[in-house]
Amino acid sequence: MSQPRPLKSESSVAPATQSGWRARWFHIIFGHDDAPGRLFDLVLIIVILSSIVVAVLDTVVDLNARFETAFYVLEWIFTIAFTLEYLMRLAVVARPRRYALSFFGIIDLLTVLPTYLSLFIAGSQYLLVIRAVRILRIFRILKMTRYVGEADLLWASLQRARHKIFIFISTILTLVLIFGALMYVIEGPQNGYTSIPRAMYWAIVTMTTVGFGDITPHTVLGQVLTSLIMLVGYSIIAVPTGIFAAELAAGIREARQRIICPSCQLEEHHPDARYCRRCGAELTRAPE
Amino acid sequence: MSQPRPLKSESSVAPATQSGWRARWFHIIFGHDDAPGRLFDLVLIIVILSSIVVAVLDTVVDLNARFETAFYVLEWIFTIAFTLEYLMRLAVVARPRRYALSFFGIIDLLTVLPTYLSLFIAGSQYLLVIRAVRILRIFRILKMTRYVGEADLLWASLQRARHKIFIFISTILTLVLIFGALMYVIEGPQNGYTSIPRAMYWAIVTMTTVGFGDITPHTVLGQVLTSLIMLVGYSIIAVPTGIFAAELAAGIREARQRIICPSCQLEEHHPDARYCRRCGAELTRAPE
Amino acid sequence: MSQPRPLKSESSVAPATQSGWRARWFHIIFGHDDAPGRLFDLVLIIVILSSIVVAVLDTVVDLNARFETAFYVLEWIFTIAFTLEYLMRLAVVARPRRYALSFFGIIDLLTVLPTYLSLFIAGSQYLLVIRAVRILRIFRILKMTRYVGEADLLWASLQRARHKIFIFISTILTLVLIFGALMYVIEGPQNGYTSIPRAMYWAIVTMTTVGFGDITPHTVLGQVLTSLIMLVGYSIIAVPTGIFAAELAAGIREARQRIICPSCQLEEHHPDARYCRRCGAELTRAPE
Amino acid sequence: MSQPRPLKSESSVAPATQSGWRARWFHIIFGHDDAPGRLFDLVLIIVILSSIVVAVLDTVVDLNARFETAFYVLEWIFTIAFTLEYLMRLAVVARPRRYALSFFGIIDLLTVLPTYLSLFIAGSQYLLVIRAVRILRIFRILKMTRYVGEADLLWASLQRARHKIFIFISTILTLVLIFGALMYVIEGPQNGYTSIPRAMYWAIVTMTTVGFGDITPHTVLGQVLTSLIMLVGYSIIAVPTGIFAAELAAGIREARQRIICPSCQLEEHHPDARYCRRCGAELTRAPE
Repeated sequence: MSQPRPLKSESSVAPATQSGWRARWFHIIFGHDDAPGRLFDLVLIIVILSSIVVAVLDTVVDLNARFETAFYVLEWIFTIAFTLEYLMRLAVVARPRRYALSFFGIIDLLTVLPTYLSLFIAGSQYLLVIRAVRILRIFRILKMTRYVGEADLLWASLQRARHKIFIFISTILTLVLIFGALMYVIEGPQNGYTSIPRAMYWAIVTMTTVGFGDITPHTVLGQVLTSLIMLVGYSIIAVPTGIFAAELAAGIREARQRIICPSCQLEEHHPDARYCRRCGAELTRAPE
Repeated sequence: MSQPRPLKSESSVAPATQSGWRARWFHIIFGHDDAPGRLFDLVLIIVILSSIVVAVLDTVVDLNARFETAFYVLEWIFTIAFTLEYLMRLAVVARPRRYALSFFGIIDLLTVLPTYLSLFIAGSQYLLVIRAVRILRIFRILKMTRYVGEADLLWASLQRARHKIFIFISTILTLVLIFGALMYVIEGPQNGYTSIPRAMYWAIVTMTTVGFGDITPHTVLGQVLTSLIMLVGYSIIAVPTGIFAAELAAGIREARQRIICPSCQLEEHHPDARYCRRCGAELTRAPE
Repeated sequence: MSQPRPLKSESSVAPATQSGWRARWFHIIFGHDDAPGRLFDLVLIIVILSSIVVAVLDTVVDLNARFETAFYVLEWIFTIAFTLEYLMRLAVVARPRRYALSFFGIIDLLTVLPTYLSLFIAGSQYLLVIRAVRILRIFRILKMTRYVGEADLLWASLQRARHKIFIFISTILTLVLIFGALMYVIEGPQNGYTSIPRAMYWAIVTMTTVGFGDITPHTVLGQVLTSLIMLVGYSIIAVPTGIFAAELAAGIREARQRIICPSCQLEEHHPDARYCRRCGAELTRAPE
Repeated sequence: MSQPRPLKSESSVAPATQSGWRARWFHIIFGHDDAPGRLFDLVLIIVILSSIVVAVLDTVVDLNARFETAFYVLEWIFTIAFTLEYLMRLAVVARPRRYALSFFGIIDLLTVLPTYLSLFIAGSQYLLVIRAVRILRIFRILKMTRYVGEADLLWASLQRARHKIFIFISTILTLVLIFGALMYVIEGPQNGYTSIPRAMYWAIVTMTTVGFGDITPHTVLGQVLTSLIMLVGYSIIAVPTGIFAAELAAGIREARQRIICPSCQLEEHHPDARYCRRCGAELTRAPE
C-alpha cells in the first residue's frame, strides 16, 4: 500500500475551527501525517475491504444460506460505521455543503444509502431491484481511491497519448462495424449471426483475441474472413502498446533531463540523485 | 472529436466561382473554419451516425418487426439527404467530373445507390442479395474519414515499419502453413482437422491467442505440438509491438530534436515550447 | 516482395566455368541482378506458391473429389519442374557435391522426393504414411526463404535478446509445471485434468491467453488458482515485448549514431541522409 | 544453459576446513569453476530433470499401469541420490545449521521428504493426500534456480517498475470487482453468473483475453457490457508492457552511459567495448 497522502480535491478542505474537538478530529479524519490520523486511515481501509468481502460472499448461495444472520448483522455494523464516518466528516469541515457535494462526499453518502433503502423495498416481489441495490455496496471500493496517490506519471502518459488512443478506438470500432456487417451477410442467422449488433459483439470478441467460442464461423468464406480479422486484431494490439510505451519512455527521459549539474552541465541524473555522478557537485533543479 | 480540417485530397478541390451562391455553399460544404461550415459538418456527422445506427438496428428481428415502417421512412429520409448533399457537392465544385471520380465522390455515390437499387430487386426470392445491398449502407462510415486528420505520426510510424511488418506477416503465414499441415497429419479428419485449409484456420485461431475452442487437439502428440504453437504465438506477438514502439519512439524523439535553441544549442524541446527551457531565448525551427 | 539478393550461404557458390552455357545459366539461376535472372526468380516463386496452393487444396474432400485428375497432373508437372531446376543447379555449379549438401540443396531435393516415393507406397493400406508423405510437399515454402533478405535488424535484435528470452521461456515452463501440478491435485481427473501432462497443456492454453475452453476449472479453489494463472500470464506477456522493444530501439539508435557529421559533430542522422541536417556538410561513415 | 555461477545466498557459505576431503568435496559440490565442480553440476541437473519427468509421467494412467514398478524403483533411486546430496552438503559446510535453514537447504530437504512420508500414509483411503504428497516432488524444479544467474537486469527492471505494477494490479482488481458485480446483476444466476465471485472469475477470464467460453453473456445489455470489458482489457494490456519496456530501455541506456571515454568524453559505449569508438583511447569505468 503506498503511503496515504491527501488528493488535491481534499487538500482544499479546511477545518471548521483552529482549535477544540472539531479541529482535533479534523486532523484525525482528514490528516495522514501523525499516528492517530494513520490509525484512522488503517481502520477505515480494513472496514471498507471487509464490507466488500461480505457483500461479495453474500451472493454465494451456499454461504448465504449458512451465514444469513451473520452477514445481515455485519452489514448493519458496516453501514452504521460508515454513517458515523460520514456525519463526523460533515461535522468537522468548515463548509459541510461543499464537502457533501464533492466527489468523495457523494461517494460516502451513496455507500450507506442502499442498506437503508432495502428496509423500505423488502417486498419479495422486487427481487432484481433488491439485488441491484445490494450490489451498489460494491462501489464502496471507490472510497479506496482516496489512498491512491502515485499514479501521476502513468496518468500523464495516458493524457498525452489521449488523441492517439481516440483515433485508435475509432479505427477499432469502424473495423468492428465493417467486419460485423460482412460476417452477418456471409454467415447469416442460421450460423448464430442473428443481427449486426450480435455480429459486432462477435467481431469484438474476435479482434480482442478473447474468443469465447459461443459463436463461430461455419462457412469457408466466413473462416477466411475470420482469419483476416484475427490477424488484424493480433497486429493492431501493437498500436496502443507502442503509443503508451513511447510516451512513457519520453516521460521518464524528460523527468531525468530536468536535472542538470550546475558545475559540469551533465544531464540525465537519477530522479533521487543529490550529487552529480561525474563531478560530485551538489545538484539543483534546472530553471524551466 | 478532433477539430475537422480538410484532407489533402480535398484541399485541391476548388470552388466553381469566386462569388455567388455556389461560392458561398462551397465554403459551407467544403470549408471547416467558420460557423456555417462547422454547423454543416456537425449536422452531416450526426446524420451519418444516425443512418448507421438505423441500418444496424434494422437487422435485429425484434426491432425490425416493431419499427419496420419507422426504419423504412428514416432510411428514405437519410437517402434523400445524402442525395441532396451529393448533388450540392457536384454543383458547387469547379470540376464536377474530377470530384465524382475522387475517393470521396465515389463513396458519396455508393452510399446512396443501395436504397434506390432495393426498389428494383425487392422480390422476396433474392433474400441474400437484398441483405448484402442493405448492408452496403454500413460503408457510410467511410464518409467519416473526412474528419480524421491527426493520424499522421501513427501513419508515418506504420509506413517506416512497413518492410519489417511485411517480413513478420510472411513469417506468420509460413508458420501457419507448416503447423496447419502437421496438425492435419497428426490429428486427422476424425478430430475436426478435415483439410489443410481448415487446419490453417485453426492454426491462426491458436497463434493469435483467440482460441475459439470449436476445434481442439485430442491426441497427445497434437497437444504437444499445440503447446509449441501457442508458446510461439505468445512470444511472437512481441515482434510487431516492439517494431512499432521502437519506430514511434524514434519518431517522437525526432520531432523534438528538430527544435534547437539558437542561443545555447539545447535540443529536445517540447513540441509546443516557445522559449528555451535553459537560457530563455526564443525558439525558432532549425533549418533542415 | 523485397528485392531478391543472394544469401550468404549462396554467395559463396561459384560458377562451374567463366564462360559457356553453364556460366550463362549460372547467372540466370543464381543471379538476381539482370533481366533473365529476375525472370527466373519470378517464375520460380510463382511455381512454388502454385504447387503449395495445389497441395493445400488437394486435402479438401470436395475439391479432391472434383479435381482429382487435374491435381494429379499438376503435381507431376510441378515435380518435374522442380527436378529439372535441381538438376540444372547441380550442373552449373563448380562443386555439385557442396551444393547438394548445403541447406538449399537438401531442401531442393526433399521437395521433389515425396511425389516419386508415392509411386512405390501407393497401397491403400498405408493411408497415414501417404498423407504424411504428401504433406511434405508443404515444405516447399522453405524454398522461398532464398528471397527473404531484409530480416537482418530483426534477427540481430532477437540474437541480442537471446539470453533474456531463454530465461523468460524457462520461467514460463517452470510456472506451467507448478501450476499444472497444482491444478491436477485440486481439480483431479473427474474435471478433465486426467494427468499432469494434460494439466500442463491446459496451463499453457491458459497462460498464453488462448483459452480453448475444452478443459475448464469446476471447483472454487481451482477457479481462484486459474484467476491467478491468467493474471500472471497477462502481465508476463509484457516481458518479451519489453525486451524486444528495448533491444530494437537500442539497435535503431545505434544505427543512427554511427553517422557523425565531420564538420559540426552532430550525431543521429537518418540512415539514408547524405548531408548534415544542421550545417549541410557531406556525411561520411564515422570510423568504428 | 547459462554458465552456472554461485548465487549470493550461496557465496556466503564457507567450507568446513581449508584442507582434507571436506574441503575437496566442498569445492566439487558448491564450486562451479573447475572440471569436477562442473561435472557435479551437470549430473545434478540431469538427475533433477529426470526425476521431474518421472513424477510427471507417473500421473498418466496408461504409463502408470505399464511401468508402475519401474517408476517406483526410479523414484527411490532419485530420492536416495538427493538424500546423499543433502547429507554431503550438510557435512562439508562450516555451519550446517545455517545451511539447513537457508532457502536452498529447506528446498533440498523438502524434495526428499515426500517419498519417505509416502511409506507411512500408504493406506488406500487417503487418495487425495497421497496425490498431493507425490506432487510435491514437482517442486524439485526449484533446485534448478541455483543455476539461473543472468536475470539481474530483468529483475532490476521489474523492481523499478514495482510501484507502477502495484497500481496497475489494483486497478485491474477494482475493474474486475465492479464489472463482475454489474454482470451478476444484469445476467443473473440463470445465465451462469451464479454469484459475484463466479462473475469476477468470468471478468478475469474476459479481461485477460483468455475467453474459455464456459460462461458467456446471453442478454443484450450483458453483451454490450462485455464488449466494453473486452475493449478495456485489450487496451489496458498496453500498460504493463509500456511500463516494463520503458524501464528496461532506461536500464539498457544507463548501463551504456556509465562508460565515458577519458580522452574525448564520448558516452554510450557498448558494455563490452575496451577502446573508445571515436578516438581509440582505452576506456575506464567512470567514477560514480
